[in-house]
Amino acid sequence: MAIITLTSDWGDKDYYLAAVKGSIYRQIPDVLIVDITHKIQSFEMAQAAYVLKNAFPNFPDGTIHIIGVNSEESIDEPHTIAYFQKQYFIGTDNGVFSLLFEGEIPEKIIELDITQETESFTFSSRDRFAKAAVHLAGGGDLEELGRIKSEVNKRISLKPIHDKDRIRGVIVHIDNYQNIITNISKELLEGLVKKRSFQIQVRGGEINKISDAYGDVPSGTLVALFSANDLLEIAMNQGTAAPLLGVGVGDAVIVEIEEE
Amino acid sequence: MAIITLTSDWGDKDYYLAAVKGSIYRQIPDVLIVDITHKIQSFEMAQAAYVLKNAFPNFPDGTIHIIGVNSEESIDEPHTIAYFQKQYFIGTDNGVFSLLFEGEIPEKIIELDITQETESFTFSSRDRFAKAAVHLAGGGDLEELGRIKSEVNKRISLKPIHDKDRIRGVIVHIDNYQNIITNISKELLEGLVKKRSFQIQVRGGEINKISDAYGDVPSGTLVALFSANDLLEIAMNQGTAAPLLGVGVGDAVIVEIEEE
Amino acid sequence: MAIITLTSDWGDKDYYLAAVKGSIYRQIPDVLIVDITHKIQSFEMAQAAYVLKNAFPNFPDGTIHIIGVNSEESIDEPHTIAYFQKQYFIGTDNGVFSLLFEGEIPEKIIELDITQETESFTFSSRDRFAKAAVHLAGGGDLEELGRIKSEVNKRISLKPIHDKDRIRGVIVHIDNYQNIITNISKELLEGLVKKRSFQIQVRGGEINKISDAYGDVPSGTLVALFSANDLLEIAMNQGTAAPLLGVGVGDAVIVEIEEE
Repeated sequence: MAIITLTSDWGDKDYYLAAVKGSIYRQIPDVLIVDITHKIQSFEMAQAAYVLKNAFPNFPDGTIHIIGVNSEESIDEPHTIAYFQKQYFIGTDNGVFSLLFEGEIPEKIIELDITQETESFTFSSRDRFAKAAVHLAGGGDLEELGRIKSEVNKRISLKPIHDKDRIRGVIVHIDNYQNIITNISKELLEGLVKKRSFQIQVRGGEINKISDAYGDVPSGTLVALFSANDLLEIAMNQGTAAPLLGVGVGDAVIVEIEEE
Repeated sequence: MAIITLTSDWGDKDYYLAAVKGSIYRQIPDVLIVDITHKIQSFEMAQAAYVLKNAFPNFPDGTIHIIGVNSEESIDEPHTIAYFQKQYFIGTDNGVFSLLFEGEIPEKIIELDITQETESFTFSSRDRFAKAAVHLAGGGDLEELGRIKSEVNKRISLKPIHDKDRIRGVIVHIDNYQNIITNISKELLEGLVKKRSFQIQVRGGEINKISDAYGDVPSGTLVALFSANDLLEIAMNQGTAAPLLGVGVGDAVIVEIEEE
Repeated sequence: MAIITLTSDWGDKDYYLAAVKGSIYRQIPDVLIVDITHKIQSFEMAQAAYVLKNAFPNFPDGTIHIIGVNSEESIDEPHTIAYFQKQYFIGTDNGVFSLLFEGEIPEKIIELDITQETESFTFSSRDRFAKAAVHLAGGGDLEELGRIKSEVNKRISLKPIHDKDRIRGVIVHIDNYQNIITNISKELLEGLVKKRSFQIQVRGGEINKISDAYGDVPSGTLVALFSANDLLEIAMNQGTAAPLLGVGVGDAVIVEIEEE
């Protein structure tokens, strides 16, 4: 049974979400719809990319992801389907694909060319994306959905700046526990630090080692570890790091490494 | 596979929703349960009717909708099932059916007469509505669920007032993007305006044309268009119209049309 | 088709929930995942136990419940699976099982011993609990998941104190309607009161009888009844009892019974 996921900024109070689900089930009863989240901040494409980027690798091959954020198209930012790592992504080519795939080029990119049944242009997720998803879920060819194009619109995501003794990254996400997720990857940090000692600095907080688990430090103490998506995370065991440090998305996180 | 939808004011923090779902799956494993929303304001039957009215036409024939808002019955407002446009609606006949069907008479109306297994009368959605839904989902006859009645309790929904040069409507909904949805239908507005010029007025805001898409006006500008449910909608491209205009549900929206 | 439920404090804005669902569907496509709630207050194990305790009896035999609250294990609080009333419960043995089963001993208790594929220890729900759930959903033996142990860690839940003419209980939950749920069971209250008159006291509010339904009292009046889970509930017909009385979880509720 094909899986279609939904990522949107529709919230969970209105009829939009149910309309899309009903419409999909009406066209193809034998499909599984999974909500990623509908609580993306209105129009926050980067947040949608962050959440979906971390969710999709868990899904089986062939999963179809609808991105219902900023779904109004224009000539420069057309409705698009990308095929990447054996999964399908349907959305508007406003940079979200570039953030989602971290600059990698998807195996196939199609500019969506299917007719909308209604005259209204305000609900593309139901009237175009769902239709494309149903086509794919029913085993239809990707190429039948439009014309192939060679690239997606680029949008640069912030990468940490570093020299051999210092990394300067930023906070990219605060999660539901108020844990702080940075853009400093495990690969970058471990590659630079090797066996040297180091100090992680975020606002007034300082941490000198990477732990395996929150509980490796006493309650109420800051802890650094790698998150489930292998990014440097600053948390507080049984506490809320972000409000206590007074930091938010975009704030700096520095790793100072002992000089060789 | 039959579809049962749930619309309620239970929220998403408590066990009520899971209890209803578990109870349905225990009685009939082979069914698909779809959440419409559980964030209806407590007891706000009109809001439940608005959301479900706009969601249900997207669902396939035979879908069964449970309305878990104000579900306590009384002699005057009994538990009721309506069959309307080939779908089933189970709820309390407190006016919600009348709002949902906009005054149209459902093809069949049944006053629910099934025994509740528990002594508690506080959880009708689980103990009566779910049972009725399971009966229908399993292919059971509607008529077996109670006695036929000829009408539902009426509750008047506000219709716009108009003469040949002016429409006075109200705001019926503010959506998750803070877009303003009015009760002025596309049919009414286009039927009156024809080729004349017109001005839409809502608090201090004025708009002189209907656009096809939010992006047809510059960012931060008011735009009027028809919503996915063909009602006049006032929005702000990439902005939040309702708080900026300072309006809410019930406030007036006027369309002044050039005299012939 | 096996059912796996999820109870967590992950919220609904992040990728955690979708990652767990995707991971389950990738391992076993033919399973039904049901959300209990993801709005448990961070680390509030007692709240998780309350919600799941009231939800699970509605589910069919064989249902598998994942408890994703406080899921970090330690030597004293290992990851554990309990088999209780023909359903499976997977979580961390930090007292939540004891609260969930109200001190009853589950039929089987297994200390989870399955290898985690990732090096990260921050996401047990995806990397261990889901794997165990998939094993059970696929028909695998419980005993293959680890070693049998004889008991779970105890955590005392507050029971009402009473003599023959008086019950002193506490508020254990405020629901979405602001109804007040106490820890005084129907069994205890009816067993003591018999045919005597009584008075229920909560802050300034006083009620002298148990009603069958909210609507048995006039709008805006306090009403006492037994909730769907057979606990004494104080509500206000068409109103919000908890904020009006100014009470919250942990506050006292007294039943004074006429002396014999």
